[in-house]
Amino acid sequence: MSAPVVAVVGGGQLARMMAPAAGELGVHLRVLVEAPDGSAAQVLADAPVGAASDADAVRALVAGTSGALATDAGRARAAVLTFEHEHVPFSLLDEIAADGVPVHPGPAALVHAQDKIVMRERLTELGVPCPRWAPLPTEPAAGRSALATFLADGDGTAVVKTSRGGYDGKGVRVVRSADEVDDWFSAVAAGGPALLVEERVPFTRELAALVARRPSGDVATYPVVESVQRDGVCSEVIAPAPGLSAELEAEARRIAETVVTGLGVTGVLAVEMFEVDGRVLVNELAMRPHNSGHWTIDGAVTSQFEQHLRAVLDLPLGDTSPRAPWTVMANVLGSTLGELTDALPAILAADPGARVNLYGKAVRPGRKLGHVNVSGDDLDDVRRRAVVAAARLRGE
Amino acid sequence: MSAPVVAVVGGGQLARMMAPAAGELGVHLRVLVEAPDGSAAQVLADAPVGAASDADAVRALVAGTSGALATDAGRARAAVLTFEHEHVPFSLLDEIAADGVPVHPGPAALVHAQDKIVMRERLTELGVPCPRWAPLPTEPAAGRSALATFLADGDGTAVVKTSRGGYDGKGVRVVRSADEVDDWFSAVAAGGPALLVEERVPFTRELAALVARRPSGDVATYPVVESVQRDGVCSEVIAPAPGLSAELEAEARRIAETVVTGLGVTGVLAVEMFEVDGRVLVNELAMRPHNSGHWTIDGAVTSQFEQHLRAVLDLPLGDTSPRAPWTVMANVLGSTLGELTDALPAILAADPGARVNLYGKAVRPGRKLGHVNVSGDDLDDVRRRAVVAAARLRGE
Repeated sequence: MSAPVVAVVGGGQLARMMAPAAGELGVHLRVLVEAPDGSAAQVLADAPVGAASDADAVRALVAGTSGALATDAGRARAAVLTFEHEHVPFSLLDEIAADGVPVHPGPAALVHAQDKIVMRERLTELGVPCPRWAPLPTEPAAGRSALATFLADGDGTAVVKTSRGGYDGKGVRVVRSADEVDDWFSAVAAGGPALLVEERVPFTRELAALVARRPSGDVATYPVVESVQRDGVCSEVIAPAPGLSAELEAEARRIAETVVTGLGVTGVLAVEMFEVDGRVLVNELAMRPHNSGHWTIDGAVTSQFEQHLRAVLDLPLGDTSPRAPWTVMANVLGSTLGELTDALPAILAADPGARVNLYGKAVRPGRKLGHVNVSGDDLDDVRRRAVVAAARLRGE
Repeated sequence: MSAPVVAVVGGGQLARMMAPAAGELGVHLRVLVEAPDGSAAQVLADAPVGAASDADAVRALVAGTSGALATDAGRARAAVLTFEHEHVPFSLLDEIAADGVPVHPGPAALVHAQDKIVMRERLTELGVPCPRWAPLPTEPAAGRSALATFLADGDGTAVVKTSRGGYDGKGVRVVRSADEVDDWFSAVAAGGPALLVEERVPFTRELAALVARRPSGDVATYPVVESVQRDGVCSEVIAPAPGLSAELEAEARRIAETVVTGLGVTGVLAVEMFEVDGRVLVNELAMRPHNSGHWTIDGAVTSQFEQHLRAVLDLPLGDTSPRAPWTVMANVLGSTLGELTDALPAILAADPGARVNLYGKAVRPGRKLGHVNVSGDDLDDVRRRAVVAAARLRGE
């Protein structure tokens, strides 16, 4: 027998950060990368180049026939297929599963991360608390009318979303009148993704619950964290969420466990939530390691990347306990530096305990280029240190 | 500017365990591996194949001309050359340094890890406490005579060592009479490594002090650990060394700092010591990440592998604080399993907090195949868990 091969579609920073965990577990990681110098390709021995939409490339990834690594492990068939993003054609996943290679998370679960209308319908069935919401009819006049009614039933403001293809604030628009998404209705009429509308929740803050489930059913939940957003993108994560009541922590965990089990998710699931009036409402789902879980690399006994590999291989899940009272993760979004490693001397000299993680990506405005984790006993100190180090990496 | 390239000679588990740290720091790691499916080659994108004794292969490693990775980073010249073992020809290192690529640790330091006579002479000059020792004349009759005198001056027992080429108990022999190393004297006469003799220290236990030094001079020292030996090979490491007095801890650290500075070591240095009668005596040196420091991967804020990369790149050194009151590392030496990953379901089910690290090496009797780290508050519990998990990986 040889070591199991985990095939991953997508070669960004999430696949890159799976590499250390795979190496430690003695698991062979094979990642379908977009380019030979992409984030994951820079660090992995077995990184065939191809697009997630290229069925032959995905088949070769699973079969070990890409020729990217001329060793026994490079030629071995995958034990499981998983993903670092949700954009993979389902018919192909069904074919691969029928061919005997498990796909985790499976298509039946993954559709809830791809399509927000399907997600809202299923969460509502499961009794999971969500913002008030409605699907919008695809015919523009009917859609506008439904949106006007939704606005009138609420406080006059609402959030319209495309059901598919949105991320990091894209595909989301706050509206006050029904004619503010006419361009989107036109896109729907032209075959674009359907729309839904949700109440604009007057939330106190955003929380995230990270949970993992293995095919045989076991579930492991991480401490609930606060996700600090700036311009619709996560800028910091505080673990655990400061001042969260035991009741709300339990409720958020219970929701995450209901969702992971109810949707049949295998692997890691991130549930983004709003905290509002002593309740939590589910905002978004991601069925993969997630930005809100990067703190676990340094701050938890088992990182979310190792947990994902364990889960998709149906191995027993790891200890999700924090290693320190507080861990703060600060994202590096864009930079004025040409090369982020140029900031290392100043950062490491100022803070010997800062845990820098760079993704090897070319600098572009607003792009996620890396993060910094800091752990310790004093939240204010920990947060300040993480934010300062991330600012230096942005060139500030 | 592009990210710095660290070139490493030697593709075993030590280079393999540098990979996660390099990825996180955004540093490009290029490792000269012995075989395309070797321990480090399995996990690294840029792993040219060649022998440490092959000058052209080492030159190409540094120059980026091996062609192992067809990206800009794969073709970039190294910022520094370092090692995972001490067996590299010095003339070549001098040439590379003269050519403008720093070599860390440099040849002038490295000789002390290659040659035990040179090491003992220099440590004696520095006033570092060592076992009583003497070089043995290379002429066999004179050598035997000197050995007989050394035995007579002590308790009738001594340890004879080859000055070069020994590791993990090889090249070390306990003798009670001068004719017990006649084969080695013959080897010396035939051009083999010279011999030295040391008193057999009646030590209570073995300790190890890990220290790092960057070229600009800063030094960072880890907590002193106990190294539990079985059959001359380290079987467990306990961090920190239980019951070590503050005075002896300070003395061991002071010795490590004296050695790293006195010998001009750059990178990580492991100083193995004997504890005897309330004193510590230096046993061996290793100028690279070392088995006695594997506990730092999970048990310290900065792992020895990241610390080595930071040191050789002349970056500020990281926090060496422990993350938990106790961490125990247990080695996996040999196994009856065909594939170590077969033991993962049982180990991970029994102990969700066990940190397994497998090296991807084929099973051979006594071979270092991996290790397990366990951290926690209760030393007995932590040690038992690490030992049990390692035993399962050995197939017990």
